[in-house]
Amino acid sequence: MTDKKLIGVDLGGTTCKFAILTTEGEIQQKWAIDTNILDEGSHIVPDIIASINEHLALYNMKPSDFVGIGMGTPGSVDIKEGTVTGAYNLNWKTKQPVKRDIEAGTGIAFSVDNDANCAALGERWQGAGQNEPNVILVPLGTGIGGGIIMDNKLLHGTAGSAGEIGHVVVEPHNGYLCTCGNHGCLETVASATGIVRVARDMAEEYAGDSKLKETLDNGDDISSKMVFDLAKAGDKLALAVADKVSYYLGFALANLGNTLNPEYIVIGGGVSAAGDFLLKRVQKNFEKYTFKNVRDTTKVVLATLGNTAGVIGAARLALD
Amino acid sequence: MTDKKLIGVDLGGTTCKFAILTTEGEIQQKWAIDTNILDEGSHIVPDIIASINEHLALYNMKPSDFVGIGMGTPGSVDIKEGTVTGAYNLNWKTKQPVKRDIEAGTGIAFSVDNDANCAALGERWQGAGQNEPNVILVPLGTGIGGGIIMDNKLLHGTAGSAGEIGHVVVEPHNGYLCTCGNHGCLETVASATGIVRVARDMAEEYAGDSKLKETLDNGDDISSKMVFDLAKAGDKLALAVADKVSYYLGFALANLGNTLNPEYIVIGGGVSAAGDFLLKRVQKNFEKYTFKNVRDTTKVVLATLGNTAGVIGAARLALD
Repeated sequence: MTDKKLIGVDLGGTTCKFAILTTEGEIQQKWAIDTNILDEGSHIVPDIIASINEHLALYNMKPSDFVGIGMGTPGSVDIKEGTVTGAYNLNWKTKQPVKRDIEAGTGIAFSVDNDANCAALGERWQGAGQNEPNVILVPLGTGIGGGIIMDNKLLHGTAGSAGEIGHVVVEPHNGYLCTCGNHGCLETVASATGIVRVARDMAEEYAGDSKLKETLDNGDDISSKMVFDLAKAGDKLALAVADKVSYYLGFALANLGNTLNPEYIVIGGGVSAAGDFLLKRVQKNFEKYTFKNVRDTTKVVLATLGNTAGVIGAARLALD
Repeated sequence: MTDKKLIGVDLGGTTCKFAILTTEGEIQQKWAIDTNILDEGSHIVPDIIASINEHLALYNMKPSDFVGIGMGTPGSVDIKEGTVTGAYNLNWKTKQPVKRDIEAGTGIAFSVDNDANCAALGERWQGAGQNEPNVILVPLGTGIGGGIIMDNKLLHGTAGSAGEIGHVVVEPHNGYLCTCGNHGCLETVASATGIVRVARDMAEEYAGDSKLKETLDNGDDISSKMVFDLAKAGDKLALAVADKVSYYLGFALANLGNTLNPEYIVIGGGVSAAGDFLLKRVQKNFEKYTFKNVRDTTKVVLATLGNTAGVIGAARLALD
């Protein structure tokens, strides 16, 4: 390996994280700036360039010390052109030539991919994926994204939609309406918001004693974290919700396994904080719906990097 | 491209097909021999070697005229080692070192993969896949196999089970028992045998007029071809069976599209002879269960090569 370094950038709607890493994946420096989405997001790229240049000066480094910069971003990415479209939470209304501008502004080679793909690269390289060639990340957040790495390469598909595991349909009959316009997508029942929706619906039909039902009947807000905390404490309704959500997840991940037979399917995102309690239930359903060779060789595990996965994976982009 | 040629071998339980192709994929010679599975299949590899050497002499060609030999085979393939295990319809009870033996016997470089993967390579290269980088073949035969090509490469997964689309579960509750030991696999309802099973079950509950029901009630055998022929002729029960099978196929292929966003999903195998009648119904369900970007960019089409896909794809193995 070379002594040169990597820069990872994880661009989000509120903050933009940066890190300088060795080519072995060790983080040497880390910082973050606020994302300024004013004026149609026109400050974002100049702010990124300025922040990189400032920190290089601070650390007494020059462009030739780096293999490259990799960045994860919301929106649709044209990885060849290095452009981003449809990143609404950045206020970007037109196609952004991020590669052209950041290469010109820093003098360092630049690659970009979407944030879910970068997080998958990060978890695979330095996290739960153990650097195996075939790893899938399924991050359970407000929505559900996904990134698929097979034979050491991120899959993008013909129009960039490979890995959109949140829109795999798990409830083909009378499923909930999804933000994508379809019904019954995994995201509608297993994202943080989906879990709350499942809980609300199940509470309506539930008759027994339950703190979760009480909270909902009082008109108080609940969160997916609260559902899992109550389930762990033995709340019967919350347990039923956890079981239903785990069924949907296990079913979807099993078919992902049956189709791709990766070494690891990594569950990440905020919901994965429910930990082994969630994992065990998902694994039970995964085992039920996979055929033998996949059941024996594909493992469902929890993410280990938390929200540094994005910046680490972005740096990895620069290496590949 | 080189002037050198490719040899494709499509090894099956009853015949073994051979072809000599240009590196552009044009078939120049074609022949076949019977597969002799006696004596634990010990004649198979020697017969293949002898047949190749005979035909090379016949056409006045020598080993150095070839880039290589590629072969598709039943069973589990270790593509690196070039060995085959578990090919029960060839009567092979132990691991077969096909690469070692065929290279030694012919003096030509040899590659091997499973038959479904080779058929996928063939349909992608010279058939319905239009040589696009992202193509999936779903062959509907007695069983359902599958081959997935992403970014111009066959996917194998961590233990060779990538592409086993027949074992994607489409009926998670009370599905039929599959040969794999699971319930509700796509193969149980959309393979040639699965379609007959769906027809039998639906006939039991069907009350109206139907030639299909009459045939079944008489205890006569039916085939998936008969179901589709009767459906095309307006038989109400047969139409209901065709709709149900098309739902399962469309649902499974939609989730394949949502996960991988290939350019083409190619329906092949004997059942695909039902043609546009089947295709249109599958597409309708595919459109229902895919999200917009996949619906707009992933196309479900019929295979065009028939059973030469295997030998063409095997030859392609030698090129890659």
